[in-house]
Amino acid sequence: MPVRPPAEIGMSLDEVDTPALIVDLDAFERNLKRLADRVRQSGVRLRPHAKTHKCPVIALKQIELGAVGVCVQKVSEAEAMVYGGVRDVLVTNEVMGRQKLRHLMALAHTARIGVCVDDPQQIADLEAAAAEAGLKTLPVHVEINMGGNRCGVEPGEPALKLARLVEDQPHLSFAGLQAYHGSAQHLRGWDERQRAIEGAADKAALTRDLLAANGIPCDSITGAGTGTFEFEAGSGVYTELQCGSYIFMDADYGRNLDKDGAQTRAFEPSLFVWATVMSRPAEARAIVDAGLKALAFDSGPPLVWDEPSATYERASDEHGRLAVAGATNRLRLGDKVKLVPGHCDPTVNLYDWYVGIRHDRVESLWPITARGAVY
Amino acid sequence: MPVRPPAEIGMSLDEVDTPALIVDLDAFERNLKRLADRVRQSGVRLRPHAKTHKCPVIALKQIELGAVGVCVQKVSEAEAMVYGGVRDVLVTNEVMGRQKLRHLMALAHTARIGVCVDDPQQIADLEAAAAEAGLKTLPVHVEINMGGNRCGVEPGEPALKLARLVEDQPHLSFAGLQAYHGSAQHLRGWDERQRAIEGAADKAALTRDLLAANGIPCDSITGAGTGTFEFEAGSGVYTELQCGSYIFMDADYGRNLDKDGAQTRAFEPSLFVWATVMSRPAEARAIVDAGLKALAFDSGPPLVWDEPSATYERASDEHGRLAVAGATNRLRLGDKVKLVPGHCDPTVNLYDWYVGIRHDRVESLWPITARGAVY
Repeated sequence: MPVRPPAEIGMSLDEVDTPALIVDLDAFERNLKRLADRVRQSGVRLRPHAKTHKCPVIALKQIELGAVGVCVQKVSEAEAMVYGGVRDVLVTNEVMGRQKLRHLMALAHTARIGVCVDDPQQIADLEAAAAEAGLKTLPVHVEINMGGNRCGVEPGEPALKLARLVEDQPHLSFAGLQAYHGSAQHLRGWDERQRAIEGAADKAALTRDLLAANGIPCDSITGAGTGTFEFEAGSGVYTELQCGSYIFMDADYGRNLDKDGAQTRAFEPSLFVWATVMSRPAEARAIVDAGLKALAFDSGPPLVWDEPSATYERASDEHGRLAVAGATNRLRLGDKVKLVPGHCDPTVNLYDWYVGIRHDRVESLWPITARGAVY
Repeated sequence: MPVRPPAEIGMSLDEVDTPALIVDLDAFERNLKRLADRVRQSGVRLRPHAKTHKCPVIALKQIELGAVGVCVQKVSEAEAMVYGGVRDVLVTNEVMGRQKLRHLMALAHTARIGVCVDDPQQIADLEAAAAEAGLKTLPVHVEINMGGNRCGVEPGEPALKLARLVEDQPHLSFAGLQAYHGSAQHLRGWDERQRAIEGAADKAALTRDLLAANGIPCDSITGAGTGTFEFEAGSGVYTELQCGSYIFMDADYGRNLDKDGAQTRAFEPSLFVWATVMSRPAEARAIVDAGLKALAFDSGPPLVWDEPSATYERASDEHGRLAVAGATNRLRLGDKVKLVPGHCDPTVNLYDWYVGIRHDRVESLWPITARGAVY
């Protein structure tokens, strides 16, 4: 039983219970359209990452604007997407374990499901599971390490070896390379990000050419995020973009700089945690009802969007302490504020509902059906 | 629709899908009993904090062992507890907002519900809501600031003023003081914690005596946590203990020191995140499938419980990077490991199910019905 929604359709924003995850629908729709338009011009495919929103309603909006499908990180996320109507899902991750593989193969009977590998053992396990499930062919990407030192084999020969092994399996097909450069996304300077992606594209191109020279065509090179997509799109190497956060933005992405050195204006914040001032024990201190269980803090505290005199200073489980500058102090007990999360993805994963707001009214309640889908 | 459980009753632990929140039932039951026994000897009441477990099944086990009821932080948590069979719930927090107050009063028709205040406005709002709901009387605690500078009025006169105001309301009754010293819980040294609670008890006693001198008896002084409960229990001032984390412990509480200077042995870790090594791209690097959406990091990374050669080094949304010492390197692709969360409360809030394990078998699946109950 999920927790009751914090709002009803038609309510005014003021009446929405707190903390709630609210979406400024106008800003959200502008973000959706802005990326779709830019990608359409570039000629590459867009496959947005659903790990950001975990919501099939949003996935279908992205597809309606031209996306070929979505990415997910987990098998249970793929389930939420397929059960919500998405027909093309790439698991941008390695999948290990019998339970996970059985669930993955079950999905592959009703939707196009891709997956990544970085080890021969994963290929053997995928082959066995696909054969057991009676699948004709499962598309498999080889993940290459772009320098983030997380998953992925090294570019070049190690990737060729795995691609060959995939091609040798009767129930698997080599679908391309995953070349996501995660650690480039939050490099602050535009030039830094550009250089990082030039390096990544070189590694991917080298690997693609090595594969081609060995008779293995590489139809898809997939990667990119909200911080760097323009570079991958223009690289001539990448064929598919995986941006996720662009729909919402967050405080951390907001600190990236554009080419002119100004804070990024590529997209605008559309996701907020709506919180109440629940205690006002001192002039310089306001306590809000949103803490560690209502916001992710791995990329820093949230920004107080609509009250410039206040700074979110410290979180405990259910409380946030705002430092309030005396001179412009407008926050009263019971007031509600919008907080821009430091990091959108793990913040979304704390909520069961998006409360869609337009002109200060609740227009929609979208269930976050992949919340907690961590398997 | 909550996410499917990661296990079935009777499965072996090895078969449990990952990441999963597993409870070592033997260790958990020893923790439950250990605190219950110690509190029974002390003569004070035990009202464990359900913000830790968010699960009525566990609340009822605590009550069976002598607890008078539970604490919660939020109205929606109180709903989960009352709907799960708990008849006495203290909201150890201020409650602001019309929606919250209506829900709170609805609960007070079927269970004993207490609440805290630190401002005259909250008292006025509670009185209006209680009158509107036709309640006879709602027990109200005045929260005093023990030095953590979160919520709470200052001890002494400011608390007396609020207590009088509560007493003046026809539908409210003054129930006592909340004197929780949160910032003392993780002071590492035993002596430091003892001194901090001596100071807190002095402030609470001073306030209690001032109230008594003004004709307001103070039947309940409630507070204490897992780090300090022995001091509150022996203070002669506190009448009720609010410990929560003792049932699970976590890496952060594990760093507290006992009187002899050794790491605390008061309780033992019983809560783990069960994770799979999903990628093994280099000898010194293992990637597990539990990251920011599977663990809370506000009090540091998790400990790798059953593999001393591995250190959880870095988290991203869905991945954890373990640094593995070469010489004793036993971790293979597909292996599963137990991680002790840095902080139990916000980690629990990420999961829908506890997987109870005894002798490496799944004995129980308990729904975490207050997960996401942040309103």
